[in-house]
Amino acid sequence: MPIITLLTDFGLQDPYVGVMKGVIYKINPNVKIVDITHGVSKFNVREAAFILAYSYKYFPPGTIHVVVVDPGVGTARKGLIIKTKKYFFVGPDNGVLISAAEENGIQAVYFINTENYKEISYTFHGRDVFAPTAAYLSLGIPPSKLGNPTEKYLPAPYSRPSIVEKGTISGEIIYIDGFGNLVTNIPSNLIWKQEIRYGDLLEVTIRGRRPMKLRLHKAYGETPPGSLLLLINSFNHLEISMNMGNAANALKVKQGEKITVRKVI
Amino acid sequence: MPIITLLTDFGLQDPYVGVMKGVIYKINPNVKIVDITHGVSKFNVREAAFILAYSYKYFPPGTIHVVVVDPGVGTARKGLIIKTKKYFFVGPDNGVLISAAEENGIQAVYFINTENYKEISYTFHGRDVFAPTAAYLSLGIPPSKLGNPTEKYLPAPYSRPSIVEKGTISGEIIYIDGFGNLVTNIPSNLIWKQEIRYGDLLEVTIRGRRPMKLRLHKAYGETPPGSLLLLINSFNHLEISMNMGNAANALKVKQGEKITVRKVI
Amino acid sequence: MPIITLLTDFGLQDPYVGVMKGVIYKINPNVKIVDITHGVSKFNVREAAFILAYSYKYFPPGTIHVVVVDPGVGTARKGLIIKTKKYFFVGPDNGVLISAAEENGIQAVYFINTENYKEISYTFHGRDVFAPTAAYLSLGIPPSKLGNPTEKYLPAPYSRPSIVEKGTISGEIIYIDGFGNLVTNIPSNLIWKQEIRYGDLLEVTIRGRRPMKLRLHKAYGETPPGSLLLLINSFNHLEISMNMGNAANALKVKQGEKITVRKVI
Repeated sequence: MPIITLLTDFGLQDPYVGVMKGVIYKINPNVKIVDITHGVSKFNVREAAFILAYSYKYFPPGTIHVVVVDPGVGTARKGLIIKTKKYFFVGPDNGVLISAAEENGIQAVYFINTENYKEISYTFHGRDVFAPTAAYLSLGIPPSKLGNPTEKYLPAPYSRPSIVEKGTISGEIIYIDGFGNLVTNIPSNLIWKQEIRYGDLLEVTIRGRRPMKLRLHKAYGETPPGSLLLLINSFNHLEISMNMGNAANALKVKQGEKITVRKVI
Repeated sequence: MPIITLLTDFGLQDPYVGVMKGVIYKINPNVKIVDITHGVSKFNVREAAFILAYSYKYFPPGTIHVVVVDPGVGTARKGLIIKTKKYFFVGPDNGVLISAAEENGIQAVYFINTENYKEISYTFHGRDVFAPTAAYLSLGIPPSKLGNPTEKYLPAPYSRPSIVEKGTISGEIIYIDGFGNLVTNIPSNLIWKQEIRYGDLLEVTIRGRRPMKLRLHKAYGETPPGSLLLLINSFNHLEISMNMGNAANALKVKQGEKITVRKVI
Repeated sequence: MPIITLLTDFGLQDPYVGVMKGVIYKINPNVKIVDITHGVSKFNVREAAFILAYSYKYFPPGTIHVVVVDPGVGTARKGLIIKTKKYFFVGPDNGVLISAAEENGIQAVYFINTENYKEISYTFHGRDVFAPTAAYLSLGIPPSKLGNPTEKYLPAPYSRPSIVEKGTISGEIIYIDGFGNLVTNIPSNLIWKQEIRYGDLLEVTIRGRRPMKLRLHKAYGETPPGSLLLLINSFNHLEISMNMGNAANALKVKQGEKITVRKVI
């Protein structure tokens, strides 16, 4: 039974996610639907791209990943199907799918052709375009029958970290999770390349505030409750955390703030 | 595999929804359960009725829709099974099922007979009455074996818009979604009948405040970010929205407030 | 098709729950996954233990219950598989599984052996240890192949009520649900043993505040909207509620506060 995942900024208060599932099951009752999350910050394409790039690979090959974070709904922006080495990705052409798809290896990209779809609203393409497209793919209909090949899709909404000088990395807080962990866009390999190791003391500066000295730990529990620490998290990115506490609240940091990390000699 | 949908005001913090699913799977392991939403405002029967009437039709024929928004739980209020043209509806007899059921075409209504049910609590009929009833229906047991036919059920908790004079419609904010969109109880056909068209400028007055002039657009993205606009939304109702913003916060409007809409000549 | 339930403090904002489901389906596509809740207060092992003990029994025999409320993740704490009379329980060795497992009848306990697992992170054993362990169990792999038998697991994080004197029970607010109901750790049988009956007037004292006189009712609807009352709730525990209102907000009570209940003669 194929799997369709859903990743949106719809939240769970409204019936929008439930209705998308109804639409999918009406077309293909023999599919499993899994929610990745519907808690993406409203209209935040970059955050959704980051979460998708983290999550997609944990699902079985053949999974169809649907993302609806879509500030341009109802305008001229197109819808995409991307076929990668192991997965399908379906969503708006605003870059949200591209980080994940490029990592997995893009084989073909299609603009969704909605000519044969029922009446399409101007405000809810999750229901009227992306859910049915995913359902048709799950029935085995090839993407070439659902769209037209293209190479003119929008790029990933990247925010890349940079090496300011040897041992100093500049990045940003790309995501704050429900525990208040401050997830940076700095991947672990960039850390290791700067010859930073577990146990090292780092100077961390958030957006021109007073620098903090924090140690790079392996696990939350290596420090006393309430302590701030650095971790390589389960996204395999550098993260500022507070053991048994909420780092975002403690530091009053918001998504998107710039961060610099420097090894203390 | 039959589908059972759940629509409640339980929220997702508590184990109540999970427990209802356990009860259903214990009776029928071969069923799909889909959450429409559990985010209905607590005890708000009208809101739940509105959401059900919007959502039910997107599910495959044969779907069993269970609604538990039930301020009268444990009192003498009865439980209902409604058989309509394409669906079953299960829930308390407080009107919450009626708008949807009438729209689909009521064929028969039954008061649930709980004589043969296990011990029934006074506080959680979602678990003790409605979940098992839906599970039995999904096994193919006819509703006539689960209840007694009746015509004495409570009516829909309707709030209908009215035409004040030609071109002036009076209604209310029936629902505020997670994006802060203000959904009115004014359906699009009432708009078109007043000869209002896309692009028209309308005078919108909320509960005696200063009137606003807003244009009826097709899509959020037709206006600059932060602009207020009118839309026919995916519920096919008139809605006040803010592109890339939150109209409810901006206007400080609450559910239930009265609204008047008038075409500006 | 076997059922795996998930009970965590992850919330639903983040992709963590979705990723755990991906991991499970990758190992066993033929399983049903049910969320009990992901809304446990962060790091609150006692609350999770209470919710599990309430919820587990509503699921079909053979269900595999996974709990991840795990402040010690990445430290030396072990992972457990518990085989009981009717269920499996999987989670960290911090007592969270024990109340439920003991109630159902423990047959064997195993420390999970992760030698053959892929790289395990220091921060997300829900994904790297507990999800795969549950998935292997759901394939019929016996727990003796997934772990080593032990009797040295941590006890339940119990908080037991006590009888201060005949007719006076001392306990605590163990859980506050989404309706603001104040659930105590006082089970109904302790109430009945003190010869308290429905309709009785009780003196309720929360943490040394002014005592309140409240009546023990069967159903919320037996009192006027906005009234405080006592109930035996669907957990089969004593609860302070407000009909159509939120008792926690009205009384400004927090989880963990002590409570004394005394029959008024």
